[in-house]
Amino acid sequence: MAGYDYIHDGAAIYQRSFSMIRDEADLSAFPVTDANIVVRMIHACGMVELAQHVSMSADFTSSARQALKGGCPVLCDSEMVAHGVTRARLPASNPVVCTLRDERTPERAKLIGNTRSAAALDFWGERLKGAVVAIGNAPTALFYLLELLDAGAPKPAAVIGLPVGFVGAAESKEALSQRTDVPWLIVHGRLGGSAMAAAAVNALASETE
Amino acid sequence: MAGYDYIHDGAAIYQRSFSMIRDEADLSAFPVTDANIVVRMIHACGMVELAQHVSMSADFTSSARQALKGGCPVLCDSEMVAHGVTRARLPASNPVVCTLRDERTPERAKLIGNTRSAAALDFWGERLKGAVVAIGNAPTALFYLLELLDAGAPKPAAVIGLPVGFVGAAESKEALSQRTDVPWLIVHGRLGGSAMAAAAVNALASETE
Repeated sequence: MAGYDYIHDGAAIYQRSFSMIRDEADLSAFPVTDANIVVRMIHACGMVELAQHVSMSADFTSSARQALKGGCPVLCDSEMVAHGVTRARLPASNPVVCTLRDERTPERAKLIGNTRSAAALDFWGERLKGAVVAIGNAPTALFYLLELLDAGAPKPAAVIGLPVGFVGAAESKEALSQRTDVPWLIVHGRLGGSAMAAAAVNALASETE
Repeated sequence: MAGYDYIHDGAAIYQRSFSMIRDEADLSAFPVTDANIVVRMIHACGMVELAQHVSMSADFTSSARQALKGGCPVLCDSEMVAHGVTRARLPASNPVVCTLRDERTPERAKLIGNTRSAAALDFWGERLKGAVVAIGNAPTALFYLLELLDAGAPKPAAVIGLPVGFVGAAESKEALSQRTDVPWLIVHGRLGGSAMAAAAVNALASETE
């Protein structure tokens, strides 16, 4: 079959992509272990400028990596995040959980007067303790998580806070970045999304590039 | 529970988001029906500047909408795209298909000397005829689709070509935009992704905002 001129080998494409990102992105603000996470987040969105907008708490990477190695669940606010997590990279066959489609979620949303994305968190239950939380879609889910923590919910090991968009995304991420009770990762402003949140999980899950 | 100050109503959040996008984005290059698609793509990535980089063929929106109304399948290159398509918006309970995890895909990839993302397309088969194709992840899948078309594969009704990233993404989208045999939508350059591809499908599926 006559064809186009492009790289056909998946591993070579990854290698070349990460090499281009490291050439172009200014990662000087990050320790090496944190920079590896930023590289994968950039890979997911195609923008090297993202590096300027990423912040994480000093304990984020070590806490998240340790929790994953210990078998903690990955709790996701959307099916897209859950389906973006590469199962083969997870160090301990960690469960990947999304409760958005739990049949009780719509009723729960009415009861608490919040979105389904927020209400779904009520079905994480005790799994929240020591978990890696990955929020890539809904600002309301991130705000509600912070409210649950204030109300005494178990503490996760790390919170990837990457809701995207125009209403509440920037505000919810800033609120997360003010917290000292949980390790956190954010992107300031409107950028984020489920692919980026899954990429952060995938970077934490394995040091293989 | 004491809380943060944010909008709790999902419908109100959507309405406010789309209103902000229409205020801020320059959509003057697009007819109204096309602009509605760009608005949802912007919503998915948080960047109003995206509008400057979107192109679609003149027949794209009408062809894709008509095909969806007629019950065509939505063929996706990744599980994330497939899981980002809102089933309730689809006009004819359209099947949403991703063959990346088909058990035959790894073997097929070896046989054709291409990525699994590309090889998965060989299992779309006759479903390609009149389908809406949504590629949000792999440039190799988009290049391979064009090669299949050149080799006589059935023509889809529309191709959403939004692979993201650093190696082949821009090139594969430019190649698609040179085609006159299929209606197409692209974003020039590195931007794209599964959330954006799913957003385009969701915009085409229903005119409800």
